[in-house]
Amino acid sequence: METLTKPSLEEAHKLVEQATREKLVVLLVGQCIVNYVGRAGSVLPQGERIVIMKPDGTLLVHRKDKREPVNWNPPGCRATARLTKEGLQIFSHRPKLKETLLVLFKELKLAASFDLIDEEELYLVGSEKDLIDVVFNNPSLIEDGLRPIEREKKPRYGAIDLYGVDRDGNGVVVEFKRGRAELAGVSQLKRYVDEVKEKHEKKVRGILVAPNITLSTLKLLKESGLEYVRISKPPTHTFERVVTRDKSQKALKEF
Amino acid sequence: METLTKPSLEEAHKLVEQATREKLVVLLVGQCIVNYVGRAGSVLPQGERIVIMKPDGTLLVHRKDKREPVNWNPPGCRATARLTKEGLQIFSHRPKLKETLLVLFKELKLAASFDLIDEEELYLVGSEKDLIDVVFNNPSLIEDGLRPIEREKKPRYGAIDLYGVDRDGNGVVVEFKRGRAELAGVSQLKRYVDEVKEKHEKKVRGILVAPNITLSTLKLLKESGLEYVRISKPPTHTFERVVTRDKSQKALKEF
Repeated sequence: METLTKPSLEEAHKLVEQATREKLVVLLVGQCIVNYVGRAGSVLPQGERIVIMKPDGTLLVHRKDKREPVNWNPPGCRATARLTKEGLQIFSHRPKLKETLLVLFKELKLAASFDLIDEEELYLVGSEKDLIDVVFNNPSLIEDGLRPIEREKKPRYGAIDLYGVDRDGNGVVVEFKRGRAELAGVSQLKRYVDEVKEKHEKKVRGILVAPNITLSTLKLLKESGLEYVRISKPPTHTFERVVTRDKSQKALKEF
Repeated sequence: METLTKPSLEEAHKLVEQATREKLVVLLVGQCIVNYVGRAGSVLPQGERIVIMKPDGTLLVHRKDKREPVNWNPPGCRATARLTKEGLQIFSHRPKLKETLLVLFKELKLAASFDLIDEEELYLVGSEKDLIDVVFNNPSLIEDGLRPIEREKKPRYGAIDLYGVDRDGNGVVVEFKRGRAELAGVSQLKRYVDEVKEKHEKKVRGILVAPNITLSTLKLLKESGLEYVRISKPPTHTFERVVTRDKSQKALKEF
């Protein structure tokens, strides 16, 4: 862990270079210009922002407000730092799209690098309907780039738990099971997928989401060209260690 | 600006309390458990993460990988800190939904608080088609919670630049203009909105996106129940100050 308060651009440059080599997380806070260059582009003139660089290639530029980063590059990008008389330049290249995110720091308040040791997985809790709500608002739990469109979309029979489109524009039907996924769930999902495919005349994927699945169900699922995503019940000890003032905590413990 | 390296939980608690009062941004890095409690919930057992608390109520929990925060609360939430024998608890309440995000820190590597002075707006550059691509991948440029579904969706005549759904599930038709928006743009957008409304039998909004708009066009737009979002061309000086190795920079300068 290295932390530099009000570092010079030279000091920050060294920190970023070393952290990149060692695959550490980097935090930079300071005055910068942010420029996105690709087929289209964007320019954010000088101001103070937070930059997070992750070892997987993610780069996030956050302003003092909002949930979304003002600019970002996803995992798989490559970041390099260069010191010029303009300032400290952080380049993040997105290889396939030939797009580059540039952050040009003029002055820094803080530069820090550190490893994050974190081997845990996220556990979801709640009724089937509640889980659908959580995933609707946080679709990356199922898949990066998934865009939910409708909850309880109605085909001819039944109701599709969640319908959306994936990164490539394909339709995605998601079926949730709170308990173990069984063979009947596969038939149900297959029927929904076929109906949507027929109606919209495009590629439609089907994803079964459950805490676990029988082997024969998984086999049938794969043979049917469908997918499985596991969501987990939390280990009970985890709740005991979290103290809360919220009454709904009780409901969760009883899950 | 206050920066504490390996602070005690007491020191970090004081920093968070003071920063919250003074409406500063807070960065915390350390060992924590993260628990989301609402109608549904999630549990992330102990591990090292980055927490960003913004003065507008946004709270983000980032892990060492991925573009998306593992847990988050949007602007408008209220965060409080409490020191107990369990650790340093950060509560973020989402008032309307009665949902609470809890981060329980066991140990900290870094705690920092600072103001971010940033009065600039983001400028988009590129052709109409390029802008549609940028917004498709970064819809919060138009509106928080917008989920794009289709580019160049085909109604009976013409092509809808971008079609999506908003936070409340309403359809959203977005029409882009690279130059000043004129009356004809309103008629075109209105026709698309009416067609989609008729076909899908649900509420559909229309948004005209342009760098500027005539007064009469804005008036007609509002009378037609449609909306306007301004995107800006960048001030030319900004490009001159950004150095890049990317050849596409030239194309941007020529815009």
